[in-house]
Amino acid sequence: MTLPNIVSNTRVVRASYANKARVTEAQFRVESNLEIDLSSVKEGEVILRNLYLSLDPCETPAAWRTLNDPFYGLGVAEVIASGCEKYPVGTLVSVNTGYEKYTRIAGLNDPNTSSDIRVLPAHARDESTGVPLSNYISALGMPGLTAFAGLKVLDIEAGKTIFVGSAAGGVGQLVGQLAKTQGLRVIGSAGSDEKVSYLVEKQHFDGAFNYKTENAREALTRLAPNGIDYYYDTVGGEILDLVLEIINDKGKILSIGMVSQENGKEPYPIRNLNYIARKGVSILGFIYWHHLQYFANGELDGTIRPLLERKEINYREEVFDGIENAPKHFVNMLDGKYAGKVVIKIADL
Amino acid sequence: MTLPNIVSNTRVVRASYANKARVTEAQFRVESNLEIDLSSVKEGEVILRNLYLSLDPCETPAAWRTLNDPFYGLGVAEVIASGCEKYPVGTLVSVNTGYEKYTRIAGLNDPNTSSDIRVLPAHARDESTGVPLSNYISALGMPGLTAFAGLKVLDIEAGKTIFVGSAAGGVGQLVGQLAKTQGLRVIGSAGSDEKVSYLVEKQHFDGAFNYKTENAREALTRLAPNGIDYYYDTVGGEILDLVLEIINDKGKILSIGMVSQENGKEPYPIRNLNYIARKGVSILGFIYWHHLQYFANGELDGTIRPLLERKEINYREEVFDGIENAPKHFVNMLDGKYAGKVVIKIADL
Repeated sequence: MTLPNIVSNTRVVRASYANKARVTEAQFRVESNLEIDLSSVKEGEVILRNLYLSLDPCETPAAWRTLNDPFYGLGVAEVIASGCEKYPVGTLVSVNTGYEKYTRIAGLNDPNTSSDIRVLPAHARDESTGVPLSNYISALGMPGLTAFAGLKVLDIEAGKTIFVGSAAGGVGQLVGQLAKTQGLRVIGSAGSDEKVSYLVEKQHFDGAFNYKTENAREALTRLAPNGIDYYYDTVGGEILDLVLEIINDKGKILSIGMVSQENGKEPYPIRNLNYIARKGVSILGFIYWHHLQYFANGELDGTIRPLLERKEINYREEVFDGIENAPKHFVNMLDGKYAGKVVIKIADL
Repeated sequence: MTLPNIVSNTRVVRASYANKARVTEAQFRVESNLEIDLSSVKEGEVILRNLYLSLDPCETPAAWRTLNDPFYGLGVAEVIASGCEKYPVGTLVSVNTGYEKYTRIAGLNDPNTSSDIRVLPAHARDESTGVPLSNYISALGMPGLTAFAGLKVLDIEAGKTIFVGSAAGGVGQLVGQLAKTQGLRVIGSAGSDEKVSYLVEKQHFDGAFNYKTENAREALTRLAPNGIDYYYDTVGGEILDLVLEIINDKGKILSIGMVSQENGKEPYPIRNLNYIARKGVSILGFIYWHHLQYFANGELDGTIRPLLERKEINYREEVFDGIENAPKHFVNMLDGKYAGKVVIKIADL
C-alpha cells in the first residue's frame, strides 16, 4: 500500500476517571484529524499503521492512571516508517498500539527500555490458510499465550477433569479446547444459554452451564462426576470459594485474574482457604508477561496455528469495524453482550 | 530389656466431644491397669512398647470422631511381640501409637491395609552421637519431614527472604534453620520475647518478632528490607492476608495448615487473593503424607541428622515424663506455654 507522507490519526482517549461501578461510553472521547508526518520518524522510532485492536476486559477503570492518552490495548500493526533496523517498513508486529489508527513508538535503540514489540512470523500475512491475521491478538496473541502457558503451569494430565471459568471468553474457549486435545474432561461456565450451546456443540466441551441460571454447586456436581482436578480461574470471588471446597485432593487452581473483584468492588471474602492444606491444593498466580518466551521461541504459534488450520480447534472472534466504535463495544463486552474474543478492525492489511 | 508376659497398659482416651473454643483437660480420661498378654500376639500383629509420644497441635477437637479410643499421636516405639516377619522383636519404629504405653497393631499381613509403620535406621538407637531417640518424632520425624519437604516444594533459592510463621514451633524452627543453611535470609514470628530471642541467638534466624506485641506489617517491613519472597504458613487468617498484600512478585506461600482457623472458629475472610494473579504469587497446599518417600529413601535422615550431629542446627524439644501427664501438656501447648517441640517420654529405651 502506498501511503502519503502525512496520515491523519483518530484515537480514543480516556476523558474522565471512572468513579462508577461500570465503565460507560461517556468516559471515552474520540479525537480525529491528528496529523502525523511519516518523514518525521527519528532514530530509534517506528510509526505503525494499526490493523486490529484487542478489547481486553482487564483494562477496567481501576487501571486508568492518566487522562488524554489513547486507551490501552494490544494491536496488530504494520511498520510504515522506521528509524530502527530491527523493524523495517513492512514488518508485521503486535504491541500495545492503544486505541488509535497510527502509533509512534520511540526509544527502541535504548537498551534500558523494553518495547515488548513482537515481530509476527511471515505466514501471519497468509490468510489463505484459514487463519485470519486478527488471530495474532487472540488465539495466537496474548489470550492464546495465557491459555497455552497457563495449562503448562497447571501441568495437566490426561484423564483428569478441568473446570474453565468464563469459558466462552477469549482465553477460556482456548483453554477448554487445548485441554480437550490433551485428553482431559473439560467443563465450563458461561453467562448465556447460547454460549453454553456453542461451547458444547462447536468447541468440544464435555459440559457447560449457565452460571446466571443454574446453581454452580449443582452444575459442577452434575457435570464432573469424578470431581474437579483443575480450575482455570478468571473470576475469583464466590465461585473460587466454592471450588476450594469441592476440588479433589491435590487439585490445582490457576488464577489469571479475578474479574468479579474488579471495578472497585469490595473484595469477596474467601472463607475456604483452609482446604488448601487439608487437601494439598495449590493456587497458582499467572501473569502472561512471565511467559513471553513462547512467543519468542515459536512454541505458541507452532502448537496452536496447525490446530486452527486443520480446524481441530475453533476460535470464535467477534470483529467490529472502526476505531471510533471501540468505546461502545468495550462497554458492551464488559456487560457480557458478546461471545468470543472481541476485536476491532481498524484497517485492511 | 526382659519383659513379663503380661504388661499393664495406661492410656489417655477422649472422654467427651469438645464443644468449646479450647481443649480442656476434662475432655480426656486416663485409664490404667489394662492388661496385655504378649503371648496373645497373632499372625500379622505387633505389640509395641511406646517410648516417646509427640503432642501435635493439629490434633484439635475438630478431629475427634470417636470416644473412648486412645487420643491420636505419633510415637517412637519398640516391637516387643511380633507376628509379622517385617517387624521382628527389637525393631524400633515410628507410627501412630496413640496416647498409651503399649499399642497393638493388627492387619499387617493384609496387602490392602497400609500400616504407615516407619522402621527407624539402626543408628537411631545410638544416642552417643548427641541425637536423642526422641528426635525421630520431631526433627527426624513428621515435623522434620514437613519442614524438609515443604522447603523442597517451595523450591527456595539462595539470596531470597523467607518468612516463617510459628517459627519457634516443632516445624518452624527447622524450616528457618534449614533455609539458613541454604543461604536465605530467614525471619520468623513467635508468641513471646523469650522465643524471639532464642530464634535469633540460638537458631541463626536473621530476625524475629513477637506477633503479640508488635504490629506484623511494621515488623515485616523492618526485618525484610528486600521484601518477602517465601512465606512458610502454619497460621492462615489475618497474617496470610497481610502477606498476600506485601509479598514480592512471583512470591510463593506454602500452607501446611491454618492453626488460626481451627477449633471451630469462624474462618477469617481473606480479601487479598486478587494479589495472586496481580503479582504471579502461588499458594501451595502441603500435606506431609504426600511426601513419605523422604522417610523411605533415607533423604530426610541423611540430610538433617548430620546437621544435628555437627550441631549446625539446634533442635529444641521440651520433653515431659509420664503418659498420664499428656492431657495437661497438650492443653498447655495449645495455649502457647511451651517453646519448641513438645514430647512425652513414656519409657526408657
